[in-house]
Amino acid sequence: MRFRLEASDKFSKARAGEITTDHGTIQTPIFMPVGTAGTVKAVHQRELEDDIKADIILGNTYHLYLRPGLNTLEKAGGLHKFNGWTRPILTDSGGYQVYSLSEVRKIKEEGVTFRSHIDGSKHLFTAENVMDIQRVIGADIIMAFDECTPYPCDYNYARKSLDMTHRWLKRCCDRFDTTEPKYGYSQTLFPIVQGSVYKDLRQKSAEVIASFNREGNAIGGLSVGEPAEEMYAMTEIVCDILPYEKPRYLMGVGTPVNILENIALGVDMFDCVMPTRNARNGMLFTKNGILNMRNEKWKDDFSPIEEDSDLFSDRNYSKAYLRHLIISKEILGAQIATLHNLHFYIWLVKEAREKIISGEFYDWKSKMIKQLSQRL
Amino acid sequence: MRFRLEASDKFSKARAGEITTDHGTIQTPIFMPVGTAGTVKAVHQRELEDDIKADIILGNTYHLYLRPGLNTLEKAGGLHKFNGWTRPILTDSGGYQVYSLSEVRKIKEEGVTFRSHIDGSKHLFTAENVMDIQRVIGADIIMAFDECTPYPCDYNYARKSLDMTHRWLKRCCDRFDTTEPKYGYSQTLFPIVQGSVYKDLRQKSAEVIASFNREGNAIGGLSVGEPAEEMYAMTEIVCDILPYEKPRYLMGVGTPVNILENIALGVDMFDCVMPTRNARNGMLFTKNGILNMRNEKWKDDFSPIEEDSDLFSDRNYSKAYLRHLIISKEILGAQIATLHNLHFYIWLVKEAREKIISGEFYDWKSKMIKQLSQRL
Repeated sequence: MRFRLEASDKFSKARAGEITTDHGTIQTPIFMPVGTAGTVKAVHQRELEDDIKADIILGNTYHLYLRPGLNTLEKAGGLHKFNGWTRPILTDSGGYQVYSLSEVRKIKEEGVTFRSHIDGSKHLFTAENVMDIQRVIGADIIMAFDECTPYPCDYNYARKSLDMTHRWLKRCCDRFDTTEPKYGYSQTLFPIVQGSVYKDLRQKSAEVIASFNREGNAIGGLSVGEPAEEMYAMTEIVCDILPYEKPRYLMGVGTPVNILENIALGVDMFDCVMPTRNARNGMLFTKNGILNMRNEKWKDDFSPIEEDSDLFSDRNYSKAYLRHLIISKEILGAQIATLHNLHFYIWLVKEAREKIISGEFYDWKSKMIKQLSQRL
Repeated sequence: MRFRLEASDKFSKARAGEITTDHGTIQTPIFMPVGTAGTVKAVHQRELEDDIKADIILGNTYHLYLRPGLNTLEKAGGLHKFNGWTRPILTDSGGYQVYSLSEVRKIKEEGVTFRSHIDGSKHLFTAENVMDIQRVIGADIIMAFDECTPYPCDYNYARKSLDMTHRWLKRCCDRFDTTEPKYGYSQTLFPIVQGSVYKDLRQKSAEVIASFNREGNAIGGLSVGEPAEEMYAMTEIVCDILPYEKPRYLMGVGTPVNILENIALGVDMFDCVMPTRNARNGMLFTKNGILNMRNEKWKDDFSPIEEDSDLFSDRNYSKAYLRHLIISKEILGAQIATLHNLHFYIWLVKEAREKIISGEFYDWKSKMIKQLSQRL
């Protein structure tokens, strides 16, 4: 993996860059649609590529490990071959889902024992096997195994957890560095800064993470319920420590406003289920604000979902039709709304990139932030 | 509406023709994907047009009347404007859904009182208002209001019901012929032959229906649970009476084999929820037989869903991936399987049409029927 910085903003810490992987390049800042079980829900791969124009998608190690399982993924030749997505893929370490979805049995130094949310079967994730699993999945960017602390989190718990996450990281790196990719293309490992909302812990963690000198770094444990101001404060502290010349990935963030604010703090990569999950519930993000498609006010609004969009479904379907589909729980409603939100998120980060390059980012961001959180 | 017969088979009663409507032509025999609530479930309109290559889709009067409702549909300028489908649409009369979905209050000479399956609200469908409703929906081909008798059905009930259906038809025609289309393009009304599985009732009904001298005719009340041989016997009797130079539409039929057998008996138009509904449950129809995608045998089959298909999703996704999506209840699984089944149904009737024109229909049908019902 290579990262090249192309431009940085004078009035903030925002940067524009380009990551190169064996599956193609990723222009940053970037938003990565979440493809939990090997599919970005309700979207065809050709739509992701041609209509949404996603550079990279995310897969969830926890889900893929449980289903279709490593045996199938390895026989397929990795996730790219399995799902037909030819551009880069990033996988998380499975940690977050173990804590949020499964019945956690025990977090120990060795690793985490948990029961599958699908069939109750018992499993163990360790720093080592999570590297092996991600080798088999075949993601271009793989994530270290960490503990994502909840919010709020007791200081002492956060401190102890952090130390364990750092010890796990050492084990992750040892395993990763002594194993080979399985399918003939490179993989790279990103470590994850933790530390809850405690400045000293975040600072310490960022220093430890930076010292591992990997090709990119991530910030985890945010967007778990803390106020946005706390999130920004943590991102700022961490970005000031993480190396300037390497990509920074803020995990699980967030609203369009969160994304712009964090770009301004020096973050390059984002992922979040919000555009896809909220789409299925009828919430659309647009550059002028948020639309709740279940609202009566769209009932007889036959104007296109977004008139000047370059997305076919924004132009071809009306707000009234989309409202009808969402209210009627029709699958096509989820398809149209998901296309819209992902297209919008990708548009937003690409627009931010252009504004960083042209030197207009700061003013543009201030204007956009007022618009983006309006309720239409 | 115009209908032009192009060819007929020497060894069966199969015919190839072309229906012309103000929204374009329909080559027959044709299969019409069912778009219940104004959407063919899990399929974009552009996919219906470019990938599935559907000539015409069906809308359900009962569903559309309840939601989005006539007020919205009229303000939109009809269903074509509302859902963005620019080719022909056929609507059923709502009768079948009233009997199968709603809590039927009472079938009387005047019409049918029923409660909505959505909110329990009370409604009345009559021969007259069902014409008015279909005028507002704006379908190119609209259907007469009838009683679709269940199977089995007592002879006396079937006979009395039939007479009422005929009296309703007179009222439908009177209303239809004294009202105008609302959106500047023509609409035509097809009457429906009933009579359960009783030869004399079917014969009588076909004669009555033919005497109304409409531009096309339909056969209803079949594919409601009767053995296939009874269905074919009824179709044969009815097709021999219905005018040769007008299109014949067999409602709600059926499996690929049912469709080929009924084409051989002189049917020109079909609709059925089977390809779409069964797709969502993981059943694929192919020219070599039926695949249950939930089956363990596809788990590690990384070959394309259908290698030599001209449908993008058949070539780009593997059986193993589709199985994973269906097992995981992912929306994309429903999308891929629905595209496949509709593409196959349309391929099947287009292929039948070519074989009728080239004179090879009969032999081709015999060969296909053996293949189509195999379990793969």
